Amino acid sequence: MNTFEKHVMHVGEMASGAKLTVPVYSFEAQQTCSHPCTENTAPNVYIQANMHGAEVHGNAVIFQLLELLKNCNIQSNITLVPNANPVACNHKNGEYTLGRFDPITGVNWNRMYHFDEAVIAPFAQQNIDAREEEIKASFEQSLIDQIEQKLDHNIWGLTTGQRIAYQLQRMAHQADLVLDLHTGPISSKHLYCPEYAKASASYFDIPHTIFIPNDFDGAMDEATFCPWWSLQQAYKKLGRNFVMGKGAFAKESFTVELGSQEQIDLAVAHQDALGILSYLQYKGVIGNNEQADQPQKYLPQEMTRYACYLKDYKALYSPMGGMIDYLAEFGKPLPAGKPLARILRMDNYGDGDPLHNICLDREVIPILHFASASVNQGTELYKVFSDFFEI
Amino acid sequence: MNTFEKHVMHVGEMASGAKLTVPVYSFEAQQTCSHPCTENTAPNVYIQANMHGAEVHGNAVIFQLLELLKNCNIQSNITLVPNANPVACNHKNGEYTLGRFDPITGVNWNRMYHFDEAVIAPFAQQNIDAREEEIKASFEQSLIDQIEQKLDHNIWGLTTGQRIAYQLQRMAHQADLVLDLHTGPISSKHLYCPEYAKASASYFDIPHTIFIPNDFDGAMDEATFCPWWSLQQAYKKLGRNFVMGKGAFAKESFTVELGSQEQIDLAVAHQDALGILSYLQYKGVIGNNEQADQPQKYLPQEMTRYACYLKDYKALYSPMGGMIDYLAEFGKPLPAGKPLARILRMDNYGDGDPLHNICLDREVIPILHFASASVNQGTELYKVFSDFFEI
Amino acid sequence: MNTFEKHVMHVGEMASGAKLTVPVYSFEAQQTCSHPCTENTAPNVYIQANMHGAEVHGNAVIFQLLELLKNCNIQSNITLVPNANPVACNHKNGEYTLGRFDPITGVNWNRMYHFDEAVIAPFAQQNIDAREEEIKASFEQSLIDQIEQKLDHNIWGLTTGQRIAYQLQRMAHQADLVLDLHTGPISSKHLYCPEYAKASASYFDIPHTIFIPNDFDGAMDEATFCPWWSLQQAYKKLGRNFVMGKGAFAKESFTVELGSQEQIDLAVAHQDALGILSYLQYKGVIGNNEQADQPQKYLPQEMTRYACYLKDYKALYSPMGGMIDYLAEFGKPLPAGKPLARILRMDNYGDGDPLHNICLDREVIPILHFASASVNQGTELYKVFSDFFEI
Amino acid sequence: MNTFEKHVMHVGEMASGAKLTVPVYSFEAQQTCSHPCTENTAPNVYIQANMHGAEVHGNAVIFQLLELLKNCNIQSNITLVPNANPVACNHKNGEYTLGRFDPITGVNWNRMYHFDEAVIAPFAQQNIDAREEEIKASFEQSLIDQIEQKLDHNIWGLTTGQRIAYQLQRMAHQADLVLDLHTGPISSKHLYCPEYAKASASYFDIPHTIFIPNDFDGAMDEATFCPWWSLQQAYKKLGRNFVMGKGAFAKESFTVELGSQEQIDLAVAHQDALGILSYLQYKGVIGNNEQADQPQKYLPQEMTRYACYLKDYKALYSPMGGMIDYLAEFGKPLPAGKPLARILRMDNYGDGDPLHNICLDREVIPILHFASASVNQGTELYKVFSDFFEI
Repeated sequence: MNTFEKHVMHVGEMASGAKLTVPVYSFEAQQTCSHPCTENTAPNVYIQANMHGAEVHGNAVIFQLLELLKNCNIQSNITLVPNANPVACNHKNGEYTLGRFDPITGVNWNRMYHFDEAVIAPFAQQNIDAREEEIKASFEQSLIDQIEQKLDHNIWGLTTGQRIAYQLQRMAHQADLVLDLHTGPISSKHLYCPEYAKASASYFDIPHTIFIPNDFDGAMDEATFCPWWSLQQAYKKLGRNFVMGKGAFAKESFTVELGSQEQIDLAVAHQDALGILSYLQYKGVIGNNEQADQPQKYLPQEMTRYACYLKDYKALYSPMGGMIDYLAEFGKPLPAGKPLARILRMDNYGDGDPLHNICLDREVIPILHFASASVNQGTELYKVFSDFFEI
Repeated sequence: MNTFEKHVMHVGEMASGAKLTVPVYSFEAQQTCSHPCTENTAPNVYIQANMHGAEVHGNAVIFQLLELLKNCNIQSNITLVPNANPVACNHKNGEYTLGRFDPITGVNWNRMYHFDEAVIAPFAQQNIDAREEEIKASFEQSLIDQIEQKLDHNIWGLTTGQRIAYQLQRMAHQADLVLDLHTGPISSKHLYCPEYAKASASYFDIPHTIFIPNDFDGAMDEATFCPWWSLQQAYKKLGRNFVMGKGAFAKESFTVELGSQEQIDLAVAHQDALGILSYLQYKGVIGNNEQADQPQKYLPQEMTRYACYLKDYKALYSPMGGMIDYLAEFGKPLPAGKPLARILRMDNYGDGDPLHNICLDREVIPILHFASASVNQGTELYKVFSDFFEI
Repeated sequence: MNTFEKHVMHVGEMASGAKLTVPVYSFEAQQTCSHPCTENTAPNVYIQANMHGAEVHGNAVIFQLLELLKNCNIQSNITLVPNANPVACNHKNGEYTLGRFDPITGVNWNRMYHFDEAVIAPFAQQNIDAREEEIKASFEQSLIDQIEQKLDHNIWGLTTGQRIAYQLQRMAHQADLVLDLHTGPISSKHLYCPEYAKASASYFDIPHTIFIPNDFDGAMDEATFCPWWSLQQAYKKLGRNFVMGKGAFAKESFTVELGSQEQIDLAVAHQDALGILSYLQYKGVIGNNEQADQPQKYLPQEMTRYACYLKDYKALYSPMGGMIDYLAEFGKPLPAGKPLARILRMDNYGDGDPLHNICLDREVIPILHFASASVNQGTELYKVFSDFFEI
Repeated sequence: MNTFEKHVMHVGEMASGAKLTVPVYSFEAQQTCSHPCTENTAPNVYIQANMHGAEVHGNAVIFQLLELLKNCNIQSNITLVPNANPVACNHKNGEYTLGRFDPITGVNWNRMYHFDEAVIAPFAQQNIDAREEEIKASFEQSLIDQIEQKLDHNIWGLTTGQRIAYQLQRMAHQADLVLDLHTGPISSKHLYCPEYAKASASYFDIPHTIFIPNDFDGAMDEATFCPWWSLQQAYKKLGRNFVMGKGAFAKESFTVELGSQEQIDLAVAHQDALGILSYLQYKGVIGNNEQADQPQKYLPQEMTRYACYLKDYKALYSPMGGMIDYLAEFGKPLPAGKPLARILRMDNYGDGDPLHNICLDREVIPILHFASASVNQGTELYKVFSDFFEI
């Protein structure tokens, strides 16, 4: 049985002086041969959960992953970080968790990671002739160095969220595959996947994928794959061609949206963990299992998988205030003109129109909707795939 | 087809000067005979919804009641008030509605109604020999007068919540039957019913009833039945016996908990409205329908109905912080020792106990649970019937 | 120099598993004689701060008290508890601390202490002939036992706030003098003082005192003096007369309001600490200092001290929404008809009345006002002494 | 006496259906000659207040401006909009106003204005030979058209904040001078001024100015001057030189920070209004007054005015959680090494260090500090000018 190391990372301090910590679990690659063996080429893995405070189900998934990994044939280093953001997770407003943004500043906790585009071109120029392995090692080190510089050498300090994000990012930069476990508000399962990593999307047990471009907007997935994508493009400009997703550039990061927030379900989490193991096995992180009582291979479930590009993943904002009766089912194409929702406006009953249907002029797949029936004019009602395809 | 009157009541003013209003719908009793007919003895009805901001489903039920009442044989006056508390309903914190209490003061919106026990005994003494109808009329008037005194003649002013509550209570005191439509957080349907009105509980389509005593704690139902119950007891002390729930004392008030908060469903609301019509028909508010295309009678559904006394309706508080996997099903007796919930504590994984079962030493019926998986030590996890019986 | 003991009390656990703790500092009475001396009769003292999260200045006062007590001639046991409620203190909403009530339930943190009136009369009957010292010891023990019963033997658990309050109350019941350090929103200094302890009010450096009756409403001060007051009254009914505030009943509790919330000032806190030492010296807790470099005696400042009864300590609620220009100065009698505040209503500019004066028909002393210029209709604007006198 | 037009703009709708509105006051330029006079060249003015909910003092300043403008010699059109964001202004969390960001999404209300850089270069190319007045008119129209397109022709809808911001921006684009009245948390007065408009900074009665570059980050001031600055630069690239701040490009926008949030003071507001009139008179918006009882000219006060560039306007984040005793005075250079603040950490008293000084290694001018004493690790403590100069 594999064993993991646990250490506890200090990520924040509250007004009372209370220290908030995050547990970090690490499996090391198994030594599978007794003689000095060839370099292990399986990719290292970093998985975290609960960066947004209300999105707690990923913690249960990490629980199940830890249980399952004990009996897996582990080929590389795997780091797992549940409860990644205790500041957010502990912040209640009323019965719910105000977890998407710092309650003091409003800044989204998943928009505070670091990427400085300006370092890319100089690096490529300075390392134009380096061997691929050298490029990998020294660029990885430079990413880590930048983070450490920010964490440790800053007279002006860091925001609460940066301090958390950078400490997580420092670990994530040491991995090749990064999974950031989130949830939607009330939501189907869906996956944010870099465009170049399309092939991987089918190894998760997730029916909806959004392919995202090389634009950094502060999220963990972007913060870990954009530097490499940008570096590959910088080399290309200099005439040296690497393939994104291969060799030194075999970096993949995903935001994995595991259903709805504010709930955990350990049974569902077991299924979700199996889906992640399927992806990890596909990537060679987990070898075939030779123990009789374990599944030999983790394989993805068969399902129809829909995808769209990020530009076609559309938010629909409420045209009025009111109470929403959400009608559209997640994950199924909804014909143009069929209502996604009905808005009840009792103040209009008797002398106006108390019911309004919300329709679109095109076929879409509803992916998630707002967490509450009560909305203001302009509240995000639904997110939908507006121009989708099967993968 | 019956028609209703609509008027708009001003209940509050925000910092920007914005006025918040509540729509009020009133049906008057149909004149069913052309000659000067005998006094209409059917009880008048007051129904409101959404006093707690997140408990919005009752608005949809009032929508469906309004639709259904148009074709009913109405024997008394019925007043319906959706969106009763726009201050609460409009208050978002994150995606959810912070609706149980005034966000400035923390005071529960449903604990601000008025009842002054001190007026009861003097009234009984002064009206010791009055005819029963006189008692009814003059006590009703005195309740309304007290409210108007508070609303209009107070140099120190009223709190935001009192201003709303008193305006609603002024209308409710003019009715004999009061239904205050609420919801739980994540909840089964259940009913708060005065002990003396037990017989009525079986006419609602609600499987769980809590019988409540004559204790005023500030809620709408209590504010409307406690004065009458106290008056009946005051007369009893003076040697004059009335039966609570009969004659002048035929007053019944219910808090009707229609499932979970933060959602509306117009189809479910139609069923909920039918259950309310069943009660109203039992009380003579609605006569048999003679139109061919309408149901002649609204009858309650057959179901097992459980009840307990308020003292046995128990809240269970979390013994630790953590993430809750809620396991127990609502509405079904749960044997002693069987877990209601599991608490996941990832910070304990590896060097402690990551999973804790929450069990009780007695059989209970789970009625509702907290709205979020994330709880602090001491957060209310479940409410259960701990000593229940069938009715 | 006196030394104190420090221990750390665990008061709560957040969703992430983070434990919140409270530091407790204790000085023991100095042994001033070598031979077995006569019983120490100086009263024991309990002082806490920051039960409401935003009311942080008391922490600085406890800092200064700790510094000063090191060089005092201490005659009894003194326990000091800063940061008493880390759950509240750590809860930010926007830039401010949402500290008056549990953000999940709305319940005021200072309304969760315990007092069960029902135990009083039986205790007096059972101990009708006990010696006064016995009464003191055994009633004190019974109060502590009740708290421990609640803390440790409750299958239904405790709320988050009860767990904190009861742990604090357990310590407070072991003292004779209890000071609960609070602040108002934007506020002058004022003192809540039990009616029977009037004489003590002049020993604090606080110009405004509210005399409160023997009514328990859940606060720390009430929870510690009401049991004794009720017991004294119960004995009186049985024909045995004790004087409240003397002998076994020499119990005094104060809520000390030290100005405005959301701020600390260590220099002001030093002055505030001197005022508290003046009261403690008056009570014999601190003997005269014989060290040359220390003040021999802590004496109250000379000042005009106003007081009123709790029933005359009035809140004024805003008659409209708007923006408040607070005009009235704290602590000075304001003549009838002179404006406390002006309300600006820009939405009325040009076609209505943009400025409204808020006046009262009687002379009052303004004590505190709301923390923000923006108010809803019904927000508490001011609290004032409406029928006051000098003490 | 000048008269203004008032109209009411509908900017949002809450869940209850309540409509939120904003009052808009407009003065038109006085006709100063009877014959068809030469084109009025005085710049039009747009002034708004309270886009951030807690920053209410600007409403009082607009009140005083309206009072003063009645007696001014007005040479152009002036539009004044108080209460610009009633959604934010009405949102209380506890006693304070949660006004910097949408409580649902966390997005800063002053980061939702529109600017599309992509339209600039094509416009310059298409209008390369247009007369300057034509450029002004048609570019202004194109800015307004873009906003109207967003407001009226968008099947996906707009966020709550965009709907408000765009309606305000539509008015602001019709003006040449834009003043957006804000406040800091606890703050001195300071001014955000485009670099090219330096000369204007000395006409406000504001001692601290931050010079900002041509970077759009979503704020009102940037949204109104950046398009013109970018256009001027686009023309420059095409070889046609205009001077920013002159002729068609005589556009100036300022964010005017008028002290601290959560308060209004009508007397201070009168002074603030005089300072704004000084700037407007400098710009020719107000002619000399010929009435005997009015000041002939509004002139700026004499004062030392400090400035720095935006890159040198630094935020200092707390290195630890704790309670802050803010020490540094606003507006005065603070020598290197002198403490800005002290952090009290009572949990460390007795076995650690309870007091920490916060110092910087360079001279700075403190401009504002956080609104509360209680901070988390990483909370913004102070904003300071770190490399400043006199203007």
